[in-house]
Amino acid sequence: MRIPNHIGIIPDGNRRWALSNGLTKDKGYALGINPGLLLFKQCEKYGIKEITFYGFTVDNTKRPAVQKEAFINACIKSVKILSKENSELLVIGNTNSPSFPKELLPFTNRKTFGHGGTKVNFLVNYGWEWDLNLLKDSDKTKKNIVNNIRSNDISRIDLIIRWGGRRRLSGFLPVQSVYSDFYVIDNFWPDYRPEDLDEALNWYNTQDITLGG
Amino acid sequence: MRIPNHIGIIPDGNRRWALSNGLTKDKGYALGINPGLLLFKQCEKYGIKEITFYGFTVDNTKRPAVQKEAFINACIKSVKILSKENSELLVIGNTNSPSFPKELLPFTNRKTFGHGGTKVNFLVNYGWEWDLNLLKDSDKTKKNIVNNIRSNDISRIDLIIRWGGRRRLSGFLPVQSVYSDFYVIDNFWPDYRPEDLDEALNWYNTQDITLGG
Repeated sequence: MRIPNHIGIIPDGNRRWALSNGLTKDKGYALGINPGLLLFKQCEKYGIKEITFYGFTVDNTKRPAVQKEAFINACIKSVKILSKENSELLVIGNTNSPSFPKELLPFTNRKTFGHGGTKVNFLVNYGWEWDLNLLKDSDKTKKNIVNNIRSNDISRIDLIIRWGGRRRLSGFLPVQSVYSDFYVIDNFWPDYRPEDLDEALNWYNTQDITLGG
Repeated sequence: MRIPNHIGIIPDGNRRWALSNGLTKDKGYALGINPGLLLFKQCEKYGIKEITFYGFTVDNTKRPAVQKEAFINACIKSVKILSKENSELLVIGNTNSPSFPKELLPFTNRKTFGHGGTKVNFLVNYGWEWDLNLLKDSDKTKKNIVNNIRSNDISRIDLIIRWGGRRRLSGFLPVQSVYSDFYVIDNFWPDYRPEDLDEALNWYNTQDITLGG
């Protein structure tokens, strides 16, 4: 079986999961932490070399404060949990903003934890316009960053899996996803089951790889 | 019914259609011309204001010469046919390359044909790296184009429809598609039926619009 080198994870549906379980929307995020660890271990077992998690975006920070606090905390906890594993962790996002949690600043250069092995990128306060240097007032050093993007430490993604049924990228790494195969799981992310990843990998195995050619 | 303002069309499957009909791969492209006109007229009837067709890419030009000639000719013919309609046409792509057909140079600034009405963007010798100014040796004026992309005359896309079953963007307008809903039709493009667009629009009508929020 052809296993992708790099998978992108869009863990959507936390708020809908909460509502459908009689909770307020903000309560859904904490239930998304454990699925992330389970998925990491499953990828490790399968020999997938790199995983990128879509934590939260600049767009997401416009949500109500109680939700914002909840998803920021879920990201902090997730990164800390992954730093207890054999991983090579990188947190990437706009750190020049109060929405970037200071607890995650030490993770903004890639570091090896345990014996290393699986690269994990975690997008935190990430914005596609920020990444592509399209913000008008973004940076005084812009001359130096032409011909480059801010997420250039993240490699091309082979397979993107989105939970929660939506068929869109929602601003997820536009450059790394130009050639990605895109698989959608209808389950909400907190209902993650190992079979979801298996189903996506089985489908990916049937796809041809052309890289746009 | 909520109709998208702008749809992106990835007319894939021409070569597979040719093979499955006992023809050589290059013969599939000419059969993709008429579907484009039919789709244009259908969009006009439904009040869709803007359509972007994925003509061919810099990546595609690495294909065998006989195929390259065939898809370039199909694009030239398609643009000429659309210029007989009530349209506002723009051809966009890297004109500084021998792969850009000189017949389409007059269309590289948007022009109104007939009574105008539907905006049509046609990507010809388009490359995502070219668009995002990521090519190292791309342009001596690069300082002027930071904070902008080359396809900035093309607006955000609401719905992308891809024929031919593949679930990927293959480098299609990375910036305009960050929030696009993505619908895949299994039919090959030369087998386009009006029901394909109807099916995609009915699905789009059931999706929520969050623009990443």
